[in-house]
Amino acid sequence: MYHFLALHCLHYTLHGSSMASNSNISELQQNAKERLRIISGHLQKPANREQLRVSANECKAEAADRSLEKNRTIPKRRQETLKWNGWGYNDSKFMFNKKGQAEFTGKRYRLSGMVLPALREWFEKTFGASLEHKTPARSALNPSEVPPPILNEGFVQDLKGTAIPFSHEAEDRIFRAHGHCLHEVFALREGKFERVPDLVVWPNCHKEVEKIVELACKHNICVMPFGGGTSVSNAVECPSDEKRTILSLDTSQMNRILWIDEKNLTAHVEAGIVGQDLERLLNESGYCTGHEPDSMEFSTLGGWVATRASGMKKNIYGNIEDLVVHIRMVTPRGVIEKSCQGPRMSTGPDIYHFIMGSEGTLGVVTEVTIKIRPIPEYQKYGSVVFPNFDQGVACLREVAKQRCAPASIRLMDNEQFQFGHALKPQVSSIFTSFLDGLKKFYITKFKGFDPNQLCVATLLFEGDREKVLQHEKQVYDIAAKFGGLAAGEDNGQRGYMLTFVIAYLRDLGMDYYVIGESFETSVPWDRVLDLCSNVKERIIRECKEKGVQFPPLSTCRVTQTYDAGACVYFYFAFNYRGLSDPVHVYDQIEHAAREEILANGGSLSHHHGVGKLRKHWLQETISDVGLGMLRSVKEYVDPNNIFGNRNLL
Amino acid sequence: MYHFLALHCLHYTLHGSSMASNSNISELQQNAKERLRIISGHLQKPANREQLRVSANECKAEAADRSLEKNRTIPKRRQETLKWNGWGYNDSKFMFNKKGQAEFTGKRYRLSGMVLPALREWFEKTFGASLEHKTPARSALNPSEVPPPILNEGFVQDLKGTAIPFSHEAEDRIFRAHGHCLHEVFALREGKFERVPDLVVWPNCHKEVEKIVELACKHNICVMPFGGGTSVSNAVECPSDEKRTILSLDTSQMNRILWIDEKNLTAHVEAGIVGQDLERLLNESGYCTGHEPDSMEFSTLGGWVATRASGMKKNIYGNIEDLVVHIRMVTPRGVIEKSCQGPRMSTGPDIYHFIMGSEGTLGVVTEVTIKIRPIPEYQKYGSVVFPNFDQGVACLREVAKQRCAPASIRLMDNEQFQFGHALKPQVSSIFTSFLDGLKKFYITKFKGFDPNQLCVATLLFEGDREKVLQHEKQVYDIAAKFGGLAAGEDNGQRGYMLTFVIAYLRDLGMDYYVIGESFETSVPWDRVLDLCSNVKERIIRECKEKGVQFPPLSTCRVTQTYDAGACVYFYFAFNYRGLSDPVHVYDQIEHAAREEILANGGSLSHHHGVGKLRKHWLQETISDVGLGMLRSVKEYVDPNNIFGNRNLL
Repeated sequence: MYHFLALHCLHYTLHGSSMASNSNISELQQNAKERLRIISGHLQKPANREQLRVSANECKAEAADRSLEKNRTIPKRRQETLKWNGWGYNDSKFMFNKKGQAEFTGKRYRLSGMVLPALREWFEKTFGASLEHKTPARSALNPSEVPPPILNEGFVQDLKGTAIPFSHEAEDRIFRAHGHCLHEVFALREGKFERVPDLVVWPNCHKEVEKIVELACKHNICVMPFGGGTSVSNAVECPSDEKRTILSLDTSQMNRILWIDEKNLTAHVEAGIVGQDLERLLNESGYCTGHEPDSMEFSTLGGWVATRASGMKKNIYGNIEDLVVHIRMVTPRGVIEKSCQGPRMSTGPDIYHFIMGSEGTLGVVTEVTIKIRPIPEYQKYGSVVFPNFDQGVACLREVAKQRCAPASIRLMDNEQFQFGHALKPQVSSIFTSFLDGLKKFYITKFKGFDPNQLCVATLLFEGDREKVLQHEKQVYDIAAKFGGLAAGEDNGQRGYMLTFVIAYLRDLGMDYYVIGESFETSVPWDRVLDLCSNVKERIIRECKEKGVQFPPLSTCRVTQTYDAGACVYFYFAFNYRGLSDPVHVYDQIEHAAREEILANGGSLSHHHGVGKLRKHWLQETISDVGLGMLRSVKEYVDPNNIFGNRNLL
Repeated sequence: MYHFLALHCLHYTLHGSSMASNSNISELQQNAKERLRIISGHLQKPANREQLRVSANECKAEAADRSLEKNRTIPKRRQETLKWNGWGYNDSKFMFNKKGQAEFTGKRYRLSGMVLPALREWFEKTFGASLEHKTPARSALNPSEVPPPILNEGFVQDLKGTAIPFSHEAEDRIFRAHGHCLHEVFALREGKFERVPDLVVWPNCHKEVEKIVELACKHNICVMPFGGGTSVSNAVECPSDEKRTILSLDTSQMNRILWIDEKNLTAHVEAGIVGQDLERLLNESGYCTGHEPDSMEFSTLGGWVATRASGMKKNIYGNIEDLVVHIRMVTPRGVIEKSCQGPRMSTGPDIYHFIMGSEGTLGVVTEVTIKIRPIPEYQKYGSVVFPNFDQGVACLREVAKQRCAPASIRLMDNEQFQFGHALKPQVSSIFTSFLDGLKKFYITKFKGFDPNQLCVATLLFEGDREKVLQHEKQVYDIAAKFGGLAAGEDNGQRGYMLTFVIAYLRDLGMDYYVIGESFETSVPWDRVLDLCSNVKERIIRECKEKGVQFPPLSTCRVTQTYDAGACVYFYFAFNYRGLSDPVHVYDQIEHAAREEILANGGSLSHHHGVGKLRKHWLQETISDVGLGMLRSVKEYVDPNNIFGNRNLL
């Protein structure tokens, strides 16, 4: 078991707080049994049908779970843990030290505390950036610069009556005023605040959300559900012309696992729990959901449902729509949920698909029954290097066709392969650069590859040991047909480990005139290559035309594969020195890139969602009648637009 | 390859018309290539985005496909092929011959032309029926008894102008006036007709459907889409108080495969094609969808989408919601579809899930892009006998937990096992009775089993030969842990072969006072045993209380397995001699059985849908808000209730 955990914890428990992975499993099983006893009977044969409905546990109940809350990642006051104007944990960031060497601070990640000698050269060379030209962020938040709250006194009085904690402190409001789109973070760094939430409220359970929504309807308040705040679609940005009190409903305190059902392999969980907490707590009971979006350190179960999230390991565990068994949502019309937990139904259009993707426009997802699986016995990483991107895509397509994709299979283009070297630490076994790794493996064979052409696929296999080894052989045999050379476990493992750290790089860039963003799409197999090359070229062309004075970074990877197509994920960044309005230029280029994606048969989004950033294209994407259907549901469920974040429509 | 086909064709090409299966594959591949040439370019890089939309081919186009239409199963005049007052083909039925022996007529099925010596005894013993007491159906349809059509003259004039074929002959109208619920067929046999469609129209393509719907809106006509007519939810029954002209829109002539895309493994198909035609035509190109509902001889692609159909082999191929890549539907508001074929999207709530399950209340599904797979290299049947039903269910649950379910795995209870003997033909190798089969296998071991307790699981494996054999071993090893004995391929094969023939038995029963029906549900694993026994007991109890004078047949099987639960399928029939209103009694008992299902945590339906038969329970199933959402979509898409079949809402 230890071997598995050693690999397993690399994923979502990279940082110190994950004691679970290291403690004794059978002991953990005991905890699970105890919790099960407490929540027993939830699916026993009822005296009457009403009892079949999955019922919210009282906020006071579940002492066993409450006691666990010290383990939760997100405190009410996020500023205690998280940055107010950048990505992730306060104590973790990239910086150039006094010697001008890059290092990653803190203790949470495998890369933490390490010096990265190659990063500076890559950074300067790629972006034409220089450590002389700095654009530091405002160091601290100045509350006096935050617009004063618009407070509906009647609502505030009623809210006080409920004893549900709330705040209108500037810091609390600013933390819920943005996601992580470039322009949102750029504005924060400059201390520019437009419309921000007026109040923040922290319900502890479903019943408290019902109470809050009831009061919001009574006083005509605008409610914006807020989960992890990891949105990259402007989904949590406040509409600038909203005159009503804007209430940010922070779900972070609804973070309990209400029950685990080992017979049906399901868990009933409050929707505010973040991914890393959900997996860690389930692991204590010997289970996992296997849902691992790249944002899982901070994104929430409710957020996954609201945006139709996709997980890295969906090939085994499925995307969120495959994992959900039951959803409970509070709307201005009342609570919506199904009356039973049948695994699959033909009872008219599936109302859960009216909720999944609704992006906070209809209500608050409060509780979800989600599938769980026993923790896999064995995990193994792997990697394959291909002579070029075309061969890599052809291999991924064949693997998908043969339905033998590992838990995860991702293909990086050559630019991302090159980038791999930049994050090589001074001292480390695992962090030997990809190139070194390859040379070690194929001192001779490798000579045949052009370093400016080759690309790399990273793999993650899961299951029982014997099957994993068979599976591995099958995939490497297919890869060989496309010129792919197995490039070792370390190279694969590093790729996945860096997933969480890379998110911190944008803040470093913004200290030195470099701005960037990622965006994604899904596309049929026969259009993947055209789409990748056309979009990357379009970005470079647009940068020239828009007066960007340095060549941009324009790179992509294939991150998910399906029977009929794939998900492609783009990174795009450039040095904006000499531009008067860099954010506007950035927005124009991203807009052009999306036009290019759509013109090449790509979708508006594979998993980031629409929000406000992409709503411009929704009508042409789902047709007039399709959009009209969404509008009709919105008008029925929320006629006064209480959930007024203005996403989608 | 031959071995595969020999088995493969047992499924959906049991009858003689399936030459495809016997002809040379490489030749068939040629046909496919030719068709592909004709339809090439549909997904090439377009000059502008509009061309990305999946476009309807002109009705006149696709000569290559038109030429295939002689192979289609369903003619415009269904009476040429199908019964007007019972199930299936005119030439295929069970009957007792002059010697009083049961036989199955015709040439289409493996059982056709065979005498079944054991059936009479089983029939008389099980139902207390007697060949002396007959209740024959009216032999012929008497047009003068059919209510005259209500004809909107303006609409009829405009319809003539379109040159789209239509009819108001009594026979054509009666054929589209019913599905196959007991009370529907019972009424037909007695020549009792209530509200029936006034007109039948046969569009040839999407554009003609658009024209018809446009005219229907102009003249306020009630349109009821009609596919295979295999509904068992009253979905195609006309509302008795509908005063407008009711137009039955028969999709059977929209039966072309418009293109096959071998790069993305998809096919774009007109929605009126029936399952057996779709699979046969795809097989000619070396592909299949693998979607095989028990109704697939007659049910249509559009019907599957409209009711959220489930296929026997969903463990490999998925249910209809897993197979659909693109849907095109004509509504009173216009055409609804997405603008691209990305394999998975996060673009708000999935509008295809507004269509799937809409049961003809929103519009007509005209074209569907569906996933295809290469025909599997190898198929193998199997069977396992368990000492009792509990052990069988425990085994299926473990197989599902280990995610190693074969393409199909079904568990019959003891009553259905007993029934197996009844269909043993006089002379046949394959049709040796199950009991004989078992004895042959386990002349000794078998002594341990109680014939009144044991139950049987039938299996179907698909894939490449080596993997199938590994897979088979894994499943039989699990079965052994639950006391299961492998009982051979023939026993399994027979189970699946009888699927299509069993549907003909109800008509035999109705000749001798026996009425019955099947119904289904989905339920979490931990409730399966309770639900099965409680529902079967409830049926028996209700029969007593309602004055049924003979013990009923009350039996079930588990037909689908999922991570979190299973689908359970019930058969229920009784001898109604001595009852004044047998259909009413039957309806009361079925209603009580559904109440029992819901009280035991079962869903309102797994795959039959809601229609009008189960709409009484829809509100409590999906909550007030859920139902309100469906209503709001209906009111937006179809404010004048043009699609007025009154299903669901």
